[in-house]
Amino acid sequence: MKNIISLLFVSVFIFSCSDKKDGKNPLPKIEELSSQDSLLKNQLPDTITGENHSMIMDMILGKPKYQIKSIGILVYDGVNDLDFMGPRYVFGQSGVRPKLIALKPGTFKTVMGVEIVPDVVYDSIDHLDILVIPGGFKGTIETSYDEKLLAWIRMIDKTTIYTSSVCTGGWILGATGLLKGKKASTNWYREEEFLKKYGALPGDERYTKDGKYWTSAGVTAGMDMAIAIINENWGEKYAQGVMLDMEYDPAPPIQGGTPDNTGWLVKWMMKSMYDAGVNPLIDSLEQFKKINK
Amino acid sequence: MKNIISLLFVSVFIFSCSDKKDGKNPLPKIEELSSQDSLLKNQLPDTITGENHSMIMDMILGKPKYQIKSIGILVYDGVNDLDFMGPRYVFGQSGVRPKLIALKPGTFKTVMGVEIVPDVVYDSIDHLDILVIPGGFKGTIETSYDEKLLAWIRMIDKTTIYTSSVCTGGWILGATGLLKGKKASTNWYREEEFLKKYGALPGDERYTKDGKYWTSAGVTAGMDMAIAIINENWGEKYAQGVMLDMEYDPAPPIQGGTPDNTGWLVKWMMKSMYDAGVNPLIDSLEQFKKINK
Repeated sequence: MKNIISLLFVSVFIFSCSDKKDGKNPLPKIEELSSQDSLLKNQLPDTITGENHSMIMDMILGKPKYQIKSIGILVYDGVNDLDFMGPRYVFGQSGVRPKLIALKPGTFKTVMGVEIVPDVVYDSIDHLDILVIPGGFKGTIETSYDEKLLAWIRMIDKTTIYTSSVCTGGWILGATGLLKGKKASTNWYREEEFLKKYGALPGDERYTKDGKYWTSAGVTAGMDMAIAIINENWGEKYAQGVMLDMEYDPAPPIQGGTPDNTGWLVKWMMKSMYDAGVNPLIDSLEQFKKINK
Repeated sequence: MKNIISLLFVSVFIFSCSDKKDGKNPLPKIEELSSQDSLLKNQLPDTITGENHSMIMDMILGKPKYQIKSIGILVYDGVNDLDFMGPRYVFGQSGVRPKLIALKPGTFKTVMGVEIVPDVVYDSIDHLDILVIPGGFKGTIETSYDEKLLAWIRMIDKTTIYTSSVCTGGWILGATGLLKGKKASTNWYREEEFLKKYGALPGDERYTKDGKYWTSAGVTAGMDMAIAIINENWGEKYAQGVMLDMEYDPAPPIQGGTPDNTGWLVKWMMKSMYDAGVNPLIDSLEQFKKINK
């Protein structure tokens, strides 16, 4: 609701115009409200003005569980477009501007080839309240072998209120050792094998919460997880505001989206193709690791 | 599946290694398949190789209804991050690289403040098979008054197989006059009023198809619409491949995402805040239009 909050400040001088034009903007009649909202409504003034809007927002939305002051989302060449843009959008409504944290200066390219300007390079960041580690494909595997970055993630994790990963971002978070013994979710592709590799326990959920660690299944599950964190920290009304802004009432046109809901041949084709990219890359990186031990 | 297809080319030399390592990658046993897939399986070779992979993909996925050679997504300062990145990701798997088409040279900033490098400026494009017009907030309203751009959209529309809009992108498409008398969907916010303004009929759907015109509800509905177009043009197996890649089996953590599913106070708060931004902007743009007639 970041843009909404800024709008509210704009409204300081705007409401006078819109008042003239549309008349007052009254609160709903008591009979239009749930009993809980009715109680709240009785404590609210009749109209939003420049003076009372933040008070009204606080009264409607309530206060967050933790005061979040910094949100960082890791980005790198080959990051999955929606793995980071989903949470970037959801957390962008928290009132804190999430930073896109890159591995190196300059733009980065998503797995789909979109070129984006990051906000900052990771080694200049030493604290985050929320860390999000998105996934991807080959670039994610390479990143999961970057020991300097893994050390930075461990350091940042000591400062976080929430540490999270999306999709195969769990392969990076897992490589830090932080998922050892924790329940976690990750992309459907060879899920069990990768969780085992990092000593994590299968969460078998769209997103899994284990203490401050939140991990999601593939790509679009990152949006569900981010909204769930908004719901947990900022409350249900805040999450409802974000979901209404996103008109997030999803309706996939056909059945699919999980291995169980997908035809065998398509599932087989997808796994074969992922294997073709993943296997030789992991082989060569493990080889390099051995040589440099 | 663009990245998957590229993976397949990589696989030309890779499968030999992974064959050694994992043994052959056999097709499923007949009893694991649906009757329809069984028939198909009987015509397929037993393993994917560098030589037969594109044939196998064609046999599994089938041929598209129309050969799509160009996809363009309009972008501008203030475009909603997910309105364009959702379809950009989905259509990025079609085998055609969607172009982000900007209003002017240089980077653009999303409504959430992400800085992105577009592929091309619109006046250098004179043909598209698929045009996507994403929405946003204030930037979208301003764009819907850009007569030079509206003329370009009308010109491009003469060349398209699919013309589509996401969210308030319908306000831009509507401003071209192309939605007159057509059923359409747009963002929930003052939906009826804006459809009426552009002479469109309420589709009352998550996304609405009227001939070659596809229009979606707010933000995340653009993903459902893009997958539905993949399903329509590339077929159900292709759409299932895309949905599995996205692990698109959405599970919102709480009820919400539509005005009807949202508490009255939150709904009232959101609309009041949108009004505060929209009303004075439209007033001044209409004023300017009158003066310059």
